[in-house]
Amino acid sequence: MNNLIECVPNFSEGKDPATVQAIIDEIRAVQGITVLNTHIDPDHNRSVITFLGNRQSVSEAAFRAVTTATKLIDLRAHTGLHPRIGATDVLPFVPLAGTTMEECISVAHEVGERIASELKIPVYFYERASKRADRTNLEDIRRGGFEVLSKEIEKVPEREPDLGPRKIHSTAGAIVVGARPILIAFNVNLRTTDVGIAKKIARTVRGRNGGLKFLKAIGLDLSEKGYVQVSMNLVNYEMTKLHQAFDAVKREAEHLGVSVMSSEIIGLIPRRAVEMCAEHYMLIENFSSDAVIENRLGKRESS
Amino acid sequence: MNNLIECVPNFSEGKDPATVQAIIDEIRAVQGITVLNTHIDPDHNRSVITFLGNRQSVSEAAFRAVTTATKLIDLRAHTGLHPRIGATDVLPFVPLAGTTMEECISVAHEVGERIASELKIPVYFYERASKRADRTNLEDIRRGGFEVLSKEIEKVPEREPDLGPRKIHSTAGAIVVGARPILIAFNVNLRTTDVGIAKKIARTVRGRNGGLKFLKAIGLDLSEKGYVQVSMNLVNYEMTKLHQAFDAVKREAEHLGVSVMSSEIIGLIPRRAVEMCAEHYMLIENFSSDAVIENRLGKRESS
Repeated sequence: MNNLIECVPNFSEGKDPATVQAIIDEIRAVQGITVLNTHIDPDHNRSVITFLGNRQSVSEAAFRAVTTATKLIDLRAHTGLHPRIGATDVLPFVPLAGTTMEECISVAHEVGERIASELKIPVYFYERASKRADRTNLEDIRRGGFEVLSKEIEKVPEREPDLGPRKIHSTAGAIVVGARPILIAFNVNLRTTDVGIAKKIARTVRGRNGGLKFLKAIGLDLSEKGYVQVSMNLVNYEMTKLHQAFDAVKREAEHLGVSVMSSEIIGLIPRRAVEMCAEHYMLIENFSSDAVIENRLGKRESS
Repeated sequence: MNNLIECVPNFSEGKDPATVQAIIDEIRAVQGITVLNTHIDPDHNRSVITFLGNRQSVSEAAFRAVTTATKLIDLRAHTGLHPRIGATDVLPFVPLAGTTMEECISVAHEVGERIASELKIPVYFYERASKRADRTNLEDIRRGGFEVLSKEIEKVPEREPDLGPRKIHSTAGAIVVGARPILIAFNVNLRTTDVGIAKKIARTVRGRNGGLKFLKAIGLDLSEKGYVQVSMNLVNYEMTKLHQAFDAVKREAEHLGVSVMSSEIIGLIPRRAVEMCAEHYMLIENFSSDAVIENRLGKRESS
């Protein structure tokens, strides 16, 4: 269980399962890789694959995944709600047990080099792997999407890629490669069909507007299903905790006279985030991960 | 991680760490055994050792532990608050991942046979391993402790042991061997020095008085530390859940005008109990253990 890196590439294909499966097969073919999760979103026409392994395996599998996506996805024919600039749009590396952020930054740079030189795709580095202060935020790099970047990349100085040709790849676009802490995607559903309430709560709780620092939030209209949603990303769950995000949304909803219907975890969640909830809500003063039987069993096996 | 059995013997020695260590060393000497936890309680003059392994290892380690305790502990010289009838007082086997209750019952009977025939100690089977309806409850078997049982064992029909001599072992007393589901020991501390409040709440929330079915609870006076405690055992945490017990105590405390200060887990807790708290308090509708990254890693390793 030591020295594991998680990789969570986002691909601009969410309608053709065969294409996504071909990419998964390519990732799985690398020895030592485990594919943990696949999320295919037809509305966004986008897919997210979560896999992990040691440094060498993840580096190789990530490159092969990008190579396959480059062959199979033509961004000129792509439509979808989600902003994107590439066939493989984002390629983040995430440190798990026994791995440091520095190792993930180094893998991001190494895979980025191969993508630029072997696949001739312009590469931007983001988050912890960024090489320029204005490229920390994904949103800034992806501004205007494929269509705008195609024009600006050759002329606008701020849009010059960190590596690779200063020209958009005709079918695969460009790619954003980086390293970041693990992220929790968490939605809270509210018993109302007024999306204005979800948007108002999102603005109040998120860091961008002065709320919880490491929380991103938007309000989404799911009124045809009878409710609205505060859709959140916790980008540093050890600082801004999952239960803090939940409590903040619940409190704001109550102020607005609306009740929380349910919540949902999208994808994966670290064990500590779950344990911190139990500690918080039940005021457990001596909680330790070592008190959880199964955690002990894991340690036993690896010793 | 398959076919693991947990064993949680209780020994009537909590003041002499050397004796407890000798027993631990004997358990550890069996291949495939992991000692998870040791709790030495000088007030009760009693110790609890938690260990696990596969069926063969646990069976052997349990017998060796009882053999060592029989050599080192003389119950005639023992004083302490806790009711007890033996040097090794209780010997429960608990099914973990991949093991059934039936296997634990079978191990309990097998180890009980060896204790009766090789160590000449009277054996009573309890909980799921009991052979008589009136021996399900530990409290019933242990009534009056070593002193009363010493006299009644030879004369009173209901006190005849299930196996072994119908005569108390002069130094080791008798032993209660059994199989039971995993147990969570959980205390809630209240901001008051009135132990009457803790006792009242314990009576309201516990199964014996019509409260939560699989919850045992007593009120304890810790007023010299500035608070009182509702001390609980959850004997079937999948039916009566940890957060249900906490919420019940909190609600009763509020009715009585007292607030909850903190809570504590004693010993070990199953992962699912922690996860159910997160589900409950944050209304997570789609929670799955498979969404927890580390749980996936465990499965990956064992495949």
